[in-house]
Amino acid sequence: MIETRIDAFLGGALQIEQPLRGYRAGADAVMLAAACAARQGESVLELGCGAGVAALCLASRVPGVDLWAVERDARFAALARDNAARNGASLSVVQADLADLPPDLRGRNFDHVMLNPPFFAAGTPSPDSLRAHARHEETPLTTWLDCALRRLRPGGHVTLIHLASRLDKILTLLAGRAGAVAILPISARRGRAAGRVIVQARKGSAAGLRLLYPFIMHQAPGHAGDAEDLTAEAQAVLRHNGAISLIQPE
Amino acid sequence: MIETRIDAFLGGALQIEQPLRGYRAGADAVMLAAACAARQGESVLELGCGAGVAALCLASRVPGVDLWAVERDARFAALARDNAARNGASLSVVQADLADLPPDLRGRNFDHVMLNPPFFAAGTPSPDSLRAHARHEETPLTTWLDCALRRLRPGGHVTLIHLASRLDKILTLLAGRAGAVAILPISARRGRAAGRVIVQARKGSAAGLRLLYPFIMHQAPGHAGDAEDLTAEAQAVLRHNGAISLIQPE
Repeated sequence: MIETRIDAFLGGALQIEQPLRGYRAGADAVMLAAACAARQGESVLELGCGAGVAALCLASRVPGVDLWAVERDARFAALARDNAARNGASLSVVQADLADLPPDLRGRNFDHVMLNPPFFAAGTPSPDSLRAHARHEETPLTTWLDCALRRLRPGGHVTLIHLASRLDKILTLLAGRAGAVAILPISARRGRAAGRVIVQARKGSAAGLRLLYPFIMHQAPGHAGDAEDLTAEAQAVLRHNGAISLIQPE
Repeated sequence: MIETRIDAFLGGALQIEQPLRGYRAGADAVMLAAACAARQGESVLELGCGAGVAALCLASRVPGVDLWAVERDARFAALARDNAARNGASLSVVQADLADLPPDLRGRNFDHVMLNPPFFAAGTPSPDSLRAHARHEETPLTTWLDCALRRLRPGGHVTLIHLASRLDKILTLLAGRAGAVAILPISARRGRAAGRVIVQARKGSAAGLRLLYPFIMHQAPGHAGDAEDLTAEAQAVLRHNGAISLIQPE
């Protein structure tokens, strides 16, 4: 058994059971869901859904999507199913490795694929296997993006959130396979280098890249202790489940 | 004969003779020079110097650099030499094609290489060959970056300014050959997508990429007509020849 607790997301609109220690979903998952441009009736696949936060944020913002998720870890896959039921959402969770999807998924393609690939965070590696699975890059970024692009229909959109420092690798992997790339830098504070990027691209498109103005999380110029200092744009997403548009304005 | 005139740069500190029509250097060249981290005693090569604006801005900001430039067009190469003399700067201008440098240059390597590769600007192509040479991508970006990386010493820095929409191509070309990539988005106004990027990288480095907070050119939220509305940071560079640091703070 692993110790879990219920955490609130989206200002309390979403109740998520997740492990107390180890990998715990946070703002990245909510930001990812906000940037996925799915509309009612479209199909969406999340790769590596963990306890299901991103998929369930999306279900809450866009009713009527055909929502699927893949998760390798059996315990996280079970939590994601429980969390979908807890929040009254329809989510098909497939327990599988990205490099070896079952025929049911290999036979489908999706309007949108979204992913928040785990990364090695600085610090002492934990013996906890859940944390180890989620935080270490056991599955290379190549495998994540290859799987995402294969599961997209032509013209479908892939959306990912990842370390800004991996932008070169992400763009190299997308080159020649997806275009209309939009990059949203995410900075903790105004004036700071980006810590994360959201990257969105359209499979098979030849349209040019856009480097958007950063999304800024906190108002205060320095760390404000425990005080709530989210910017208005961060509050709109994290508290009120607002969308982030990376699509080119018409 | 082509019609030329003398334009002032750096708040009047630099007098540059350049063609009245066709390709005319502007803020991009000044920004490029500001981002080149050359120090006294170091060697710098500019690829495609045109009338010499970037190289001469650098000579003005950092005295005592060993400054070289390559320019394919004989008329621009002559203008660059004249402009160096006019501004009392020491600049060795080599008239050559990047894909076929003379042995004198092929035998040297440099601490810094900087470049502002021309790009196809939307609009009617001009029959003027100077404009055509400078604005059309007759020389592919690959050739520019290959030449830049070959002429750098190991550990030397390449700095370029280019369309933000070519960031994917730039990063793909640098991959595996240069690291410690720093990307500075340049936005016309706060909240706008980047129009240009300055990219700096260190030859042979394995250090990670940094996506910096944007440099913002204009204060007004919309076009302010003829009014001077440069931000303080843009004034510091364009009027007072200030530096732009992309180097990781220690």
